[in-house]
Parts: sequence; C-alpha cells; structure tokens
Amino acid sequence: MQQITEKLVCQVIKPRTQESHKGSFGRVLTIGGNQYFGGAIIMSASAAVYSGAGLVTCATDPQNFVSLHARLPEAMVVDYRDQQMLAELLPQMDVLVIGPGLGTDATALAILKFVFSQVQSQQHLIIDGSAITLVAQQQLTLPSAQIVFTPHQMEWQRLSGLTLAEQTPANNQAAQQKLAATVIVKSHRTEIYLPGQPAWQNPVGSAAMATGGMGDCLTGILAGFLAQFSAAPAQSILAAVYTHSAISDQLAQQQYVTLPTQIIAALPAYMAQMSQEK
Amino acid sequence: MQQITEKLVCQVIKPRTQESHKGSFGRVLTIGGNQYFGGAIIMSASAAVYSGAGLVTCATDPQNFVSLHARLPEAMVVDYRDQQMLAELLPQMDVLVIGPGLGTDATALAILKFVFSQVQSQQHLIIDGSAITLVAQQQLTLPSAQIVFTPHQMEWQRLSGLTLAEQTPANNQAAQQKLAATVIVKSHRTEIYLPGQPAWQNPVGSAAMATGGMGDCLTGILAGFLAQFSAAPAQSILAAVYTHSAISDQLAQQQYVTLPTQIIAALPAYMAQMSQEK
Amino acid sequence: MQQITEKLVCQVIKPRTQESHKGSFGRVLTIGGNQYFGGAIIMSASAAVYSGAGLVTCATDPQNFVSLHARLPEAMVVDYRDQQMLAELLPQMDVLVIGPGLGTDATALAILKFVFSQVQSQQHLIIDGSAITLVAQQQLTLPSAQIVFTPHQMEWQRLSGLTLAEQTPANNQAAQQKLAATVIVKSHRTEIYLPGQPAWQNPVGSAAMATGGMGDCLTGILAGFLAQFSAAPAQSILAAVYTHSAISDQLAQQQYVTLPTQIIAALPAYMAQMSQEK
Amino acid sequence: MQQITEKLVCQVIKPRTQESHKGSFGRVLTIGGNQYFGGAIIMSASAAVYSGAGLVTCATDPQNFVSLHARLPEAMVVDYRDQQMLAELLPQMDVLVIGPGLGTDATALAILKFVFSQVQSQQHLIIDGSAITLVAQQQLTLPSAQIVFTPHQMEWQRLSGLTLAEQTPANNQAAQQKLAATVIVKSHRTEIYLPGQPAWQNPVGSAAMATGGMGDCLTGILAGFLAQFSAAPAQSILAAVYTHSAISDQLAQQQYVTLPTQIIAALPAYMAQMSQEK
Repeated sequence: MQQITEKLVCQVIKPRTQESHKGSFGRVLTIGGNQYFGGAIIMSASAAVYSGAGLVTCATDPQNFVSLHARLPEAMVVDYRDQQMLAELLPQMDVLVIGPGLGTDATALAILKFVFSQVQSQQHLIIDGSAITLVAQQQLTLPSAQIVFTPHQMEWQRLSGLTLAEQTPANNQAAQQKLAATVIVKSHRTEIYLPGQPAWQNPVGSAAMATGGMGDCLTGILAGFLAQFSAAPAQSILAAVYTHSAISDQLAQQQYVTLPTQIIAALPAYMAQMSQEK
Repeated sequence: MQQITEKLVCQVIKPRTQESHKGSFGRVLTIGGNQYFGGAIIMSASAAVYSGAGLVTCATDPQNFVSLHARLPEAMVVDYRDQQMLAELLPQMDVLVIGPGLGTDATALAILKFVFSQVQSQQHLIIDGSAITLVAQQQLTLPSAQIVFTPHQMEWQRLSGLTLAEQTPANNQAAQQKLAATVIVKSHRTEIYLPGQPAWQNPVGSAAMATGGMGDCLTGILAGFLAQFSAAPAQSILAAVYTHSAISDQLAQQQYVTLPTQIIAALPAYMAQMSQEK
Repeated sequence: MQQITEKLVCQVIKPRTQESHKGSFGRVLTIGGNQYFGGAIIMSASAAVYSGAGLVTCATDPQNFVSLHARLPEAMVVDYRDQQMLAELLPQMDVLVIGPGLGTDATALAILKFVFSQVQSQQHLIIDGSAITLVAQQQLTLPSAQIVFTPHQMEWQRLSGLTLAEQTPANNQAAQQKLAATVIVKSHRTEIYLPGQPAWQNPVGSAAMATGGMGDCLTGILAGFLAQFSAAPAQSILAAVYTHSAISDQLAQQQYVTLPTQIIAALPAYMAQMSQEK
Repeated sequence: MQQITEKLVCQVIKPRTQESHKGSFGRVLTIGGNQYFGGAIIMSASAAVYSGAGLVTCATDPQNFVSLHARLPEAMVVDYRDQQMLAELLPQMDVLVIGPGLGTDATALAILKFVFSQVQSQQHLIIDGSAITLVAQQQLTLPSAQIVFTPHQMEWQRLSGLTLAEQTPANNQAAQQKLAATVIVKSHRTEIYLPGQPAWQNPVGSAAMATGGMGDCLTGILAGFLAQFSAAPAQSILAAVYTHSAISDQLAQQQYVTLPTQIIAALPAYMAQMSQEK
C-alpha cells in the first residue's frame, strides 16, 4: 500500500490566497448529537472550525445548543429535526458530515433519510458512526454525492459484510468499488480506499489516540479540508487523515493519552507548520 | 487612500488615567443572537469586555444566557424582546451594537425598530450583519445617532445599491455621505469612510481571518474603543479596525487560521504593547 | 493612613499545616446572581475556590447552575429562593457573601432579610453591591455578625449618607463606627475601616482594574481569606484587598485591562509566592 | 505500613501496545451528580477521560448534561433515573463509579440499589461519598463485585463503626476484611487496605489538596486506571492514589492550593513521564 507522506500534506495545505473571504473556504454542516451523545457533534463542528472551514453550522438536538456555544461560538446551530430549515440550509453547503452522536433510533433514521433525499451530487457527504450502522442495517440506497465513509473495523464489517479476518486490502477495495464511495477504514494503521486508486495507508498515529471521540474529531478535519482545498478532494482526504494522527504524535511526546479536544486546539499551529515548510 | 498606521493606534490606546473607575471606560450594550446565531453576540460582547469597555450588557435571546456566562461572566444579560428593560437600559449606554446574529425575521425587525426609536443623538450605534440587511430591505429611516455601519461587500451592495464593481472609493464615499454615517466596508483590505474625511484603508490582516464570526468580533472591538477613547471617535474607529487585523497577523505567524475567540483573548496584551510604545 | 504592605500579606498567607483537611479551610456560601447578573456570583464563588476556601456553595437563581458548573465544577449550587435548604446550609458556614448580582427587586430583598434573620454572631457576612443598596434604601437593621461592607463610593454614599466630597477618612471612620462593621470603600486607592483601628489604604492596583465584575471578584477573595485565615480576620481582610490589586499589577505589566476571571486564575500562584517569601 | 513508590507507578503505567483501540482501554460509567452537586460527577468523569479510559459515560441528573458537555465533550451522558437505559449500559462496563454528588435522598438510594442489583462479579465498583453514607445508614448488602470504597475518615467511621481514634491500621484491616472490599481511607496520609495484603500508605500529597472535589477527582483516576491496567487491579489502585497526590505536589511548587480540575488537566503529562521513566 502507498503511504501518506508529510510532503503530500504540505502540498495540500497551501498558503491562502490573499484575495479571499470566508466564503472562499467553504460551508460545512455537521449533523448529529442526540440527547446522549452531544459531545460527538461538538467535536466534529469544532474540528471543522479549527481546521479552517469558512462557515460551520451544526444541526443537532436543541439540548446541545448551549454546550456547543459555550465551547465554540464560531459555529451556528439548528434543530436537526427541523426539515424546513435543513431544506433551506443544505443546498448552500459544500460539505456535510452526518453521524457523530446521531444514534440509531427512529429520529436518527428520519434525519439520515432526509439528508440523503436532499444532498446534491457535487456535495461532499461524510458518513460516520451510527449513520454507517443505519445505512448497513436499513440497507439504504446511497444518494448521488461525493461520499466518504469513515467506519472503524466493526462498522466496516456491518457495511461491507466482511469479517475482520476478511478485511484484506483486496477485499476492502472490492467492497469500496461496489459502494462507489471513498472508504476510510480506521484502525491503528488506517487505510484509505479512494475511487480508482490503489489503497493508501496512514503511517502515523499511535495508541495515545485510542480514546472516545477521536473519530468524531476526524470527521471535522475531513470536512474542513474538503471545504477549503476543494480543488483536490482525494489529496485533501489523505492529508486530513495524516494531520489528525500527526498532531497526536506531536502531543504524545509529552502526553500518555491525547484527547480529541487537544488535537482540535492544535490544528491551526500544525497547519501553519505544514503550509510554511520548504 | 490613507493607510492606518500603528502610530495612530498608539496615539489612541493611551495609558489609563489612574483616577478612574469602570464608569470612566463606558457602557456598552450588544444586541443580537437569536436561537440559531447566539455565538455571534457572545463574540461581540466578549470583544467589548476584552478590549476594555467599563461595563458590558448583552441583549439576546434567553437561550444564549447560559452559554454567554459560561464563557464571559463579566457581562450582564437581558432578554432582547423585553422592551421595558431595554427602555431602561438604553439611555445609560455610551455605545450600542446591533446586528450580530440578530437574524432578519419579525422579532429582529421589531428589536431594530425599537432601538432606532430609543437611541439618542450622542450615542454611538454600530449596525452590523443582519441589521444592515434589514435597514436596506425595509428602507428604514436612520435615527439621529453616531452611526457606524460595518458591512461586508455584499451587505454594502444591499445598503448602498452599488454592485461590487461599482464599489470604488469615490462611489463609496458618495454613498456614505448620503447615509451621513461612518461606513466600514470589510474586505481583504477594509476601507473606512468617515464623515468629512478622505477614505482610509487598513493595510494589515490576511486570509487567516477569513472565517465565520470575524465581523462579530470587530463590532465588539469597535464598541470597546468608542466606549473608552470617546474623546476621539474617528481615530478610535480606525484604531479598532487596525487592532483587529494586527492581532490576527501576530497570531498568523504560528497559525493557519486565526479564530475570533483567539483574537479576543489576545486583545489585552496587544493593547498593552501599543500603550507602552515609544 | 496606614498602608497595607506585602509583608503583611506574607504574614497572613502562611504555609498550610500538613495535618489538615478541606474542613480546616472553611465553608463559604456566596448568595446572589439573579436572571440578569449571574456572572457576578460565578466570579465571587470562583474567587473563593481559587483563593483556597475549603468548601464553596453558591446560592443563586437556578438559571445560573449550568454556567457556574461549566466554569467551576468545584462549587455546589442551591436555589437562593429555597428557604428550607438555606436554613439547613447557613449554620454550617464560616463565611457568607451576599450581594453580587443579587439585584434590588422583591426577591432580592426577601433573600437578604432571610439571611439577616439566620446569620449567627460568629459568622463573617460580606455585604456587597445591590445588597448594600437594599440595606440603605430599606433601612434594614443589621444582624449581629462579623459584617464587612464592600461599597464603591456611590454605594457608600447611599449607606453612610456622606456625599463624595464628604467621604474624608474622619467622616468615613465615624460612619463605620456607627455601623459597627468593617467597611471597604473601593476607589482607585481603596480604604479599609476596621473596628477599633485607624484607617488603612491599599497602595497597589491601577486603572487596569476598572472593569465590570472586579468587585465581585474581591468578595470571593475576602471570603476565601476569612475562611482559611480565621485566626486573624482583620489582617485577612487587609491581605485580601492587597492581593486582589497586586495580582492585577502583575498582569498589567503585559495587559491593558485585567479581567476578574484572569485575576481569579492567578490566585493560586500569587498566594504561593507570598507563602514562600522570606 | 508499606509505602507506595514512584517505581510502582512506573510499573503500572506502561507504554501502550500499538495494536489497540479504544475498547482496549476499558469502559467506565460514572454515576452521580444530583441537582445540587453536578460538579462532582463532572470531575469524576473528567478524571476518567484524562487518565486514559477508552470510553466514559456519565449517568447524572439531566440538568448536568450541558455543563458536562461544555467542559468534556469526550463523555456521553444518560439520565441516572432511566433504569431501562442503565440496564442496557451496565453490562458493557468494566468499571463503575457511584457516589460523587449523588446525595442521600430517595432518588439516590433507588439508583444505588438498582446498580447493586445489576453489577456483575467481575466488574470494578468504586463506591464514594454519599453512596458510602447510604450503604452505612441503610445497612445495604454489598453485591458481588470488585468493590473499592473511598471514604474520608468520617465516612469510614459511618461504614466501619470505628471512631477516628479507633481507626488504627489493625482495626481498619479487620473492618476491611469484614467488608471483603478494597478500602481507601483518605486523610493527609491516605491508607489503602487491599484484600489479602498488608496495609499501604501514600507518602505524597500535601495540604494544597484540602479543597472540595478532590475526592471526586480521585474516583475518576481510579476508574481510568482500573479500566486500562486491568491485568493488575491492586497495583492500579495504589498507582492511582499516588498519581493523584504526586500531580498535586508538582503543581504545589507554584500554587498555594491545587484544584481538582487542574490535577485532571495535568494527568496526560504526568502519566507520560511515568511511562517513559527508566
């Protein structure tokens, strides 16, 4: 498998053009966070903001509005059950994230189906966590969109039907082609299956990342990168995966565990390093 | 166009007179933040507090009281629909900000009209964001007050009728004179049109500022400066615009994107630098 | 007037005895924070915790429970209108603070009267802000307790009847003797009138402290010091006033304005410096 | 008594195996936090997350959901009165904490009894604070589980029947054997009674820890250590007690009081030091 390199990351995170405004860096909508798992969507939205997305809105259970704004006043909020508002917002978006903390109940399923019915073919749609489980369990037809799945190995089993032992690169790639989507299979050495490319592997990261919420954080970085570096989506996805782990590696020099909120806080500095290299 | 200089900023941010109290540094009321955009008014109020306003009150949707206090216990809160409370508070204020996260619905319009009916001629009134859109859409008559508009280029088009291509310094100045207000046209090189002066340009700032909430942050710095440095309002406005961007430039040496909340946190140190120079 | 010295502060903030537990450092109840001014009581409780009080409870409007815990999980909360709970808690306390953000409405008056009816003669009772105004307006009879008033000059006028011009040390002392309480008259050179002592003056502090909430912060430091250093209450009061300003002076070397929440965060380090001197 | 050593801590906090995921580091459920004492369970859950537990859920009064997520989006939340949800969650857990901020009313007792009825023999169950008081007052029969009690000396008196004067190592050990549980008797020199072992003493820590919430913080570190270092529970308990105090000692070099939230924030760095030693 090809290894993602820091050089690739540097090619993606280019210095920003001066004649730009927040609209130039994309609009992101993160959808998730029920009454139990609100923290997940807070971390996803935070990672999108701190990685540089131009404008971030968070569709979630209203219970989470206050905790989100207490941490992240930069984001806007909307009730994820308000289909009228969502129908207005969705067409304006460049990137959608659905799944962090969404749960698998009837409300979650209704929201997921509604988003699938509204998403447009040019929009990036990152499907994570319980939304992956719902797609698999309910055998939902995928919409026409730029889809990225971010399963861990058990979720990948549900989605692909491949047991852990069967999750070889060749089998994974075959399953990914059937889905016609990008698939990021998360493990201690995450693999990325992009349409029409040989598989990639993430060479960085460590067990200091093995803590709750780490995947939610990744969805936000993916969204932020796809929103900003839209000319090269495949490269942006690879760079996002690498960035997530490389920041943890930097922090892990002095920390036993690296928390998602710490990785989020470190995004602006890491991205400055990469954009200034060479 | 004249360029704002650091020297001008240093002339505005003077060391404080020892025989002073919080009343000496002005009273600010920030008005905005509906149920979707509460973060905007949190950032405006925070920037007013961190730039040194004596007393800051935030009139907003009650949903935002808790998130605001979780971040900023220094500010007081009031329900922005409570006209009786607003009528009591408004005459005590030196500076009003209206617009951040206000929205454009009927509630927003009612609040804006009420504030226009109550504001007094010596008070500074900063009109931002959706409040600018409402003024333009509803063709509201401006009240007699020390008005500062802070449109980005699209809002300026709505307010002035000038398309982006027509927004030349000469046309902008003509439109500003018709409004009889100060106009800050925000772009990657923000221009400031003060009554009876040639146009000014802000030479600092970068694309690291192109992120949601940056304009909300500017309204709070403007309010804080007008509240404290009230003897020279025109200079204060220029210094506030420069300060907002200059702090971002300092942070951007080590950050790819500079968030509004980070600029707010850096205000006390930057202002100390400027007050101690020469 | 006698000047408070750093040496006095060092004599108060002694290294802690090893054989001690949280009960050794006193119980504090801060009472205040209505639906508009919740931040005030958050800052008072925070200053009590960060200055080392053993156990801190905050009696406030339930609206403020969440914002307080989001900032300060170390404190407990109780509804300030729940007389049954207050009646249970009050006898356990060493120090009470009443006033920060309390307001002056009927609810506030009822709470103040209830506390006056329950306080015991050996308890310290710090009366601040709107509680001072209520005492003056309603001509309340003071309870038998170790009372400390913390008026700014206008509140002192209401309480003592002395106009600003009349607030000379001699007049202040006469008024203080009539009240039979300690009085801290806050200004850019705060004066402290202790029973049976010549007046003291605070030689430190600057206009960087002239910002909303600074007085709320002082009440918490006073409470924390009286709770811990209970053998020498008069000295503790002087040391608390000095500490509040001396921390601001340290911060003001690099900040134009010093916010109450920043002073609170710096308390543990400043107190360590003082306890380790000589 | 045997003294816990830093060497023992280093043996427990080993570098993490690379081939691991969040499930490898255990599932923790912290149960507590009523409408008055929400901060206690926030600190317990935070300490579990920052000490490296794989997944942390907090069962508490719904009032505390927002303040918890504002501080700690890494944790999930559930209503502690929802027996159906608890019955689903409990079997998935490796470690349970019950007691921080739980209170002693009928709701608290019902929750405690329900947890006792559901806990399984291989699960670690840390019983703290008001839950200890309830066990003693209600003479509850202990369930079959890996129980750890964390009483301070007064709570130990309630549980064991031993007055403070009677709390000698020999008497404590006899009482512990009767309980058939691990007992951590907290004082300025905390003692740990493990089944089948001579007593241990914690040689570190100081009076800078004598502040509210310190015990809540310890429960979370115990939970995090038992969840991760499950092969050696006895050693993990000793290491957790030492770690809690050793971090305070590091902070106390520059702080007069060390707050629980500061100790929590310092966990990842301290644990990295220990894991990298020798």
